Amino acid sequence: MDPVIILVEPQLGENIGMAARAMANFGVTDLRLVRPRDGWPSEKARNASSRADHVIEKTLNFETLEEAVADLELVYATTARQRDMLKPVRHPVEAAHIMRETVNKGGKVGILFGRERWGLNNDEVALANEILTLPVDPDFSSLNIAQAVLIICYEWRMSGSDRQEQLPFETPDVPRASKDDMVRLFDHLEEALDEVNFFRPPEKKQHMVQNLRNIMQKGDWAEQEVKTLRGVIAALQRRHLRDRSSS
Amino acid sequence: MDPVIILVEPQLGENIGMAARAMANFGVTDLRLVRPRDGWPSEKARNASSRADHVIEKTLNFETLEEAVADLELVYATTARQRDMLKPVRHPVEAAHIMRETVNKGGKVGILFGRERWGLNNDEVALANEILTLPVDPDFSSLNIAQAVLIICYEWRMSGSDRQEQLPFETPDVPRASKDDMVRLFDHLEEALDEVNFFRPPEKKQHMVQNLRNIMQKGDWAEQEVKTLRGVIAALQRRHLRDRSSS
Repeated sequence: MDPVIILVEPQLGENIGMAARAMANFGVTDLRLVRPRDGWPSEKARNASSRADHVIEKTLNFETLEEAVADLELVYATTARQRDMLKPVRHPVEAAHIMRETVNKGGKVGILFGRERWGLNNDEVALANEILTLPVDPDFSSLNIAQAVLIICYEWRMSGSDRQEQLPFETPDVPRASKDDMVRLFDHLEEALDEVNFFRPPEKKQHMVQNLRNIMQKGDWAEQEVKTLRGVIAALQRRHLRDRSSS
Repeated sequence: MDPVIILVEPQLGENIGMAARAMANFGVTDLRLVRPRDGWPSEKARNASSRADHVIEKTLNFETLEEAVADLELVYATTARQRDMLKPVRHPVEAAHIMRETVNKGGKVGILFGRERWGLNNDEVALANEILTLPVDPDFSSLNIAQAVLIICYEWRMSGSDRQEQLPFETPDVPRASKDDMVRLFDHLEEALDEVNFFRPPEKKQHMVQNLRNIMQKGDWAEQEVKTLRGVIAALQRRHLRDRSSS
């Protein structure tokens, strides 16, 4: 059960559509409107939603905020302005965590977003349990509705415990090369370097070998990568040239 | 030292502008371009940046990606597509943490974003140290450049250790009412309820009182809030009416 996104008196249909799209990007689909200025349904919203039709189709429209939140037990008011109220202020990670706890126990949650120009009024904030605010740079703090919705839906998705849900793909699960592979690589490289008199003077060789081994250990290479490097070393040894030249 | 944002062959000036704005929202200001399709500078970019002039003014333009990343020691490639490469894949929180560690040690970091339609090619990804991907819903995964930049700059800001930097304002720092205030509140409420014979039958009173005290304890109220509630109780006791009516 994902949070309900509630837009209070959104002024532009395009912004509703972009909010719907932002929700869809992170798998959130329940959108509610309270007195959208240009009414509902809205062609501009549908067009701006860029294939988030499934969100637009399900969008509910209410006359009052009280009706829009009636079935919810936990509501966040998103605001950039400090209010003269003793209400807890959360950043999106905290809010997502608290909402996730409620949802996991079967409760319904919602997040309020205000008008483009002046956000939510204090009566609307008072209906919420807590305040949610974004860590914007105070010198450049204007985020539009869809951007705020995007970040909060992103945090919601990230708060899910299933990491497989969190990323579309992961680091390929390929184990490192074994120590045997690594020692054969070291030996091969050292042999190739001996062939070209790299280790001079002789008394420095042991230290130089240790240094090279430390360098190569940092690669944390997989078996196939070590194989590739063995091929590189063999090519540099010019064995293929030597074989052809010796007639 | 914040990360450098690098857009590779961005096709639309508007998207450059919106990326600049997204950066500015979270205090990130170094933007670099590699072969923007419509050249640089760009009026469309400036207009779309919505007052993020300080980012537009500092934007650097490069002919090759190699030049754009030359001074950086850690580079992330942002991509929605899995690549056939053995490269670590990070979600934005991890990547921000890793970048923060590098920056704290004095290193410079950067994040690559690809073209609107088809992102980064494999040569470009190969120049990066690690891959960064966003936890989008696979059924609705198209984020535009500015949205991806927004989320990553948001995570960068959140990774800063200074919580004061993270939020523009906090929960007001007002202590709870003391237990003395609370007991006076309890006593007052119980007195008011006695006056209207609320506690019936008498043998249930102790349990009802405990229940009420538990309910009110959950409010975690501040001193001024308890004062307000005392005023509510006093008004409901109709003392002001009784005083007037007794002549």
